[in-house]
Amino acid sequence: MIKTPYLLFLGDAPDQLAAKVAQGIKDWRPENVVGQISLEGCGADLGIEELDLDSAYEKGARTLVIGVANRGGVISQAWKTVLIEALSKGYDLASGLHNLLRDEEDLVEAAEKYGRTLHDVRVPSVNYPIANGKTREGKRCLAVGTDCSVGKMYTAMAMDNLMRERGMKSSFRATGQTGILITGDGVPLDAVIADFMAGSIEYLSPDNDPDHWDLIEGQGSLFHVSYSGVTMALIHGGQPDALILCHEPTRETMRGLPDYTLPSLEELQDTALPLARIANPACQVAAVSVNTQHMSEEDAQTYLNEVEARLGLPATDPYRFGADKLVDALKDL
Amino acid sequence: MIKTPYLLFLGDAPDQLAAKVAQGIKDWRPENVVGQISLEGCGADLGIEELDLDSAYEKGARTLVIGVANRGGVISQAWKTVLIEALSKGYDLASGLHNLLRDEEDLVEAAEKYGRTLHDVRVPSVNYPIANGKTREGKRCLAVGTDCSVGKMYTAMAMDNLMRERGMKSSFRATGQTGILITGDGVPLDAVIADFMAGSIEYLSPDNDPDHWDLIEGQGSLFHVSYSGVTMALIHGGQPDALILCHEPTRETMRGLPDYTLPSLEELQDTALPLARIANPACQVAAVSVNTQHMSEEDAQTYLNEVEARLGLPATDPYRFGADKLVDALKDL
Repeated sequence: MIKTPYLLFLGDAPDQLAAKVAQGIKDWRPENVVGQISLEGCGADLGIEELDLDSAYEKGARTLVIGVANRGGVISQAWKTVLIEALSKGYDLASGLHNLLRDEEDLVEAAEKYGRTLHDVRVPSVNYPIANGKTREGKRCLAVGTDCSVGKMYTAMAMDNLMRERGMKSSFRATGQTGILITGDGVPLDAVIADFMAGSIEYLSPDNDPDHWDLIEGQGSLFHVSYSGVTMALIHGGQPDALILCHEPTRETMRGLPDYTLPSLEELQDTALPLARIANPACQVAAVSVNTQHMSEEDAQTYLNEVEARLGLPATDPYRFGADKLVDALKDL
Repeated sequence: MIKTPYLLFLGDAPDQLAAKVAQGIKDWRPENVVGQISLEGCGADLGIEELDLDSAYEKGARTLVIGVANRGGVISQAWKTVLIEALSKGYDLASGLHNLLRDEEDLVEAAEKYGRTLHDVRVPSVNYPIANGKTREGKRCLAVGTDCSVGKMYTAMAMDNLMRERGMKSSFRATGQTGILITGDGVPLDAVIADFMAGSIEYLSPDNDPDHWDLIEGQGSLFHVSYSGVTMALIHGGQPDALILCHEPTRETMRGLPDYTLPSLEELQDTALPLARIANPACQVAAVSVNTQHMSEEDAQTYLNEVEARLGLPATDPYRFGADKLVDALKDL
């Protein structure tokens, strides 16, 4: 568990896109953010207060989160100066970078000296159990996609936020590094050892109140041959009561697999639902979440109406039109 | 790649069952075995020549394979004396034990001193790529089961042996520790990091002659919630042309999951085939392999006849009746 609230480190981000992890945290959990800290020449700005380490600490910040991708796979000396100073002033560090904080001797030394923690969220920090398949209390929803990167995390985040706004009991359960940094906790599923994948999801989503919903972050796709095993483990470890089908209608081939076309929403439904019912016979497909970013608003509406008619399920783009239809669909199950 | 032939170390195995890895090597690859070596009090005997280290080395043995489970998770001093002597005499060591040879300081020291290799086959020794899904030359067959431990490895081994007897081109591709020790090579799939599972199977089963068959060792089951992700990765990474359905008809609940019943062979077929066709649209279900060890011969024959009529597929128990029907089915595809 990463200590909140955060001070977001933007470093020398060349542009806004390089700071997308920081942007995600600020967008989805503004209550976890005290401010941002940049280096000279930083081209990103989250539109929140720029603070130095001391004033952010006074405002409560306890973790400096690296919210920016580094260049060339190296943690530069300019970054390290700030990171070590932060450790000396009482901050933990959290990072989703490929090169790990724990592999940097000077950071490890400083963390030991000042009694602070280095969180590398790409690496599992728990010995997960092997899944036992036992039925757990509480409700679970999993977004499954026709492809990778079609909006599964966004869908689950948007639903979780709206459910909490409405006073429902819900938790977003992160399974990827961005989600883990946003919420401060989760399982970096793509880095878990094969035998423990499903068990890590059981661990992530334990027994809960009967009217509590876990919104489990999806990964990969059953139709994406590189990562389908990861998706399968989410379906069986998550034992979802509800599936949300996610799709990006303008994409022609699977991400990174130019020889593979996307399945239809019907194929996704017919494949995912029987598999989900192995672990939870009561599972239902609740709704469809469509990423319409490459369509005009009119085309998007036409497409959503067509999907609703074809599948007999509520369909929306939660980014464009809000997540209400998706949350209503869970309530109607 | 582990150097063959082997001298099989039986240690102080309390009984025959404790030496089942050694038994598997001797049964499936007798040509890789020079003899056995036991400690005082050993209760296992493979019925092959008992040799000391020197005479086995003279007969060509180059790896001492630990063919026995250890007790209490400790590599005892009595074992180590033999293991270190073997290293000093020019043997590599190979082991599928949970506690790794490489974690034992004295073994590591001796291996360095004598320039020998320690093979811990439970641990991947390769940085596998992420699967690219590209179509590969050659044919591939994968055994998929209604449950774990229903005879998938045995089925693939028996088919491979018969195919080579018949002069067909084939390779058994090991995905578990026993299979790796038997053949000297393979991928310990259950220990691979999630993102690289399918890629490790692409690596294991590369381009080959158009008339060459890889018999890929199956793992887990799509219906076993603890390990289904591993099975999924085998189906997509293996891109099989042929599936063999494996079943144990007297088993009532899934292995280790008392709340889960086994699916029917039809359910297995209907689930596995569409998933396999994502990676290889030409995939077919070729035959059924039934583990009839808990049935009388008459009951077994009746059951196999019934399965053939119900599924319209050849069905046999390769252990009891030979693998001919399974190999014929591949030829008929």
